[in-house]
Amino acid sequence: MYQFEELQQRFETYFNRRHFPDQPKSLYDPCEYFLTLGGKRIRPILCMMGNELFDEIVPDAYQVASAIELFHNFTLIHDDIMDKAPLRRGMPTVHALHGEATALLAGDVVLVGAYEHLNRIDPIYMKSIIALFNTTAKEVCEGQQLDMDFEQLNDLTLDQYLHMITLKTSVLLAASLQMGAILGGAGAGNQQHLYAFGKNLGIAFQIQDDYLDAFGDPEKFGKQVGGDIMANKKTFLMIHALETATPVRQEELKMLMRENPADKVPRVLEIFRETGIEQWALALKDQYLSVAFQHLEDIAVVGSRKQPLMRLAQYLVQRDK
Amino acid sequence: MYQFEELQQRFETYFNRRHFPDQPKSLYDPCEYFLTLGGKRIRPILCMMGNELFDEIVPDAYQVASAIELFHNFTLIHDDIMDKAPLRRGMPTVHALHGEATALLAGDVVLVGAYEHLNRIDPIYMKSIIALFNTTAKEVCEGQQLDMDFEQLNDLTLDQYLHMITLKTSVLLAASLQMGAILGGAGAGNQQHLYAFGKNLGIAFQIQDDYLDAFGDPEKFGKQVGGDIMANKKTFLMIHALETATPVRQEELKMLMRENPADKVPRVLEIFRETGIEQWALALKDQYLSVAFQHLEDIAVVGSRKQPLMRLAQYLVQRDK
Repeated sequence: MYQFEELQQRFETYFNRRHFPDQPKSLYDPCEYFLTLGGKRIRPILCMMGNELFDEIVPDAYQVASAIELFHNFTLIHDDIMDKAPLRRGMPTVHALHGEATALLAGDVVLVGAYEHLNRIDPIYMKSIIALFNTTAKEVCEGQQLDMDFEQLNDLTLDQYLHMITLKTSVLLAASLQMGAILGGAGAGNQQHLYAFGKNLGIAFQIQDDYLDAFGDPEKFGKQVGGDIMANKKTFLMIHALETATPVRQEELKMLMRENPADKVPRVLEIFRETGIEQWALALKDQYLSVAFQHLEDIAVVGSRKQPLMRLAQYLVQRDK
Repeated sequence: MYQFEELQQRFETYFNRRHFPDQPKSLYDPCEYFLTLGGKRIRPILCMMGNELFDEIVPDAYQVASAIELFHNFTLIHDDIMDKAPLRRGMPTVHALHGEATALLAGDVVLVGAYEHLNRIDPIYMKSIIALFNTTAKEVCEGQQLDMDFEQLNDLTLDQYLHMITLKTSVLLAASLQMGAILGGAGAGNQQHLYAFGKNLGIAFQIQDDYLDAFGDPEKFGKQVGGDIMANKKTFLMIHALETATPVRQEELKMLMRENPADKVPRVLEIFRETGIEQWALALKDQYLSVAFQHLEDIAVVGSRKQPLMRLAQYLVQRDK
């Protein structure tokens, strides 16, 4: 059994190479640039862990893991266009460097590159893996669309936000694990438990992310603290505050989002704190975590095989950066 | 053997239905809208004809043909964003109706939809068809990128334009035929001849298209005549005129492209005519056509099986709208 760091190293050794042809440079160099920006490669490693939960890692796991990482990068390149984001992982985004048209096309070919990896795997599980991959790909697009739709919505409920965030981020974590499970020869029941583990873990992770954006240590948190508040993003925290603050404070929150005063972040944080939001968010996170771990427990393999996944899950939701 | 019109009807019967889930409407309705704008469905029908050239049409041909048509529509949705085109087939484009972000995502899910069809076909030819599909998809993206790159280039050669247009439009026609040939059980040599037929036919078709944009009958030609000239598009005609007009006329052409006077179209057409461009374009078209037909002739099946393809090719390059 390998721990996260070992799998990360093995995956990086396989993945860190040129993925696309040399020409035309104007299309493929932006793709290569974006892929070298890195990230923690969590999704491909979840795929490899999903495989190893049931059996030794098969060579095809590297193909599927690469497809997943390319897919993830495709979504980031396109999301950055839609969000007009200037930076990703502290570096200029593809559209910031090369314009929206090239970034759009770069995302497109990176997605095609993902399918090239999927086309190399053993036919015995190719259909089931591509089917799950396609379903997930559509769901991630749905999540991104809902995210944009919800920006226009005044009264977003927590349920709506949960549905959106599940599609936008959790299903890919879940599917990465399940694709690994398919490669490892898992039965349908075990696959479903592993998928549910990933989905609930993903939601806990998002709650953590929203929480850290507001209350994280600026030294440790990679991004600007309060960035979501500045951008009027609807997060778990903002939705909860809009639902539970006193009527006067709700009006104040709406005014702050409308008028963007210079002291917006501290004033929003003050209202957040008044609603007891820190305890609420941490309790909600723990709730999803415990559902996740129950599903992991229900998987019919010896407990020791689950240890690397358990450790990774703990790391993901306790990270402070 | 079926003629184009019969295959078109059969394909439409299969294809004209809802392709995507109901929800979220904000994502999937724009996809459905675009798919109903129609078009002649030439590529999927080339796939079916490629199949029938060698054997009876297999049920999987409808899956592959649908994947090809969805792929083509994905490229159109994204190209329209990049070109900032307000209209497609006389109707508003997706981004004109729903904004660029939704159009971007709509294109993405339409591409994923294409792969869903490919994942349904018989495993015996699934890998070879997806491999050809992926290679072609990347080439089409490369062609679009080169098209944008060339807009910034002052001295574009005919060879560069040919390379770009081959990638951007011809390889998909060629690959559509070859995917059909794979379904029909054709050998490698026959597949290659059919691919070469499609590629050369595609170039002849593009010459025709460029020609009609300048010299077509406005009543019959679906688009505004002179549209390419208005938009300073580098076409077969413009490149040839810039290469062969007298130095004085070359300068005048460049001035017209720079300054966009009200009488730009008639003045450019006058320069085009002076270089004998009409005869040149028609001769160039015939040259590619004859290479195409030689490849069709070289395919080792009885001549009668080739008749529908021959007729379709003639129709495509003699059409006046």
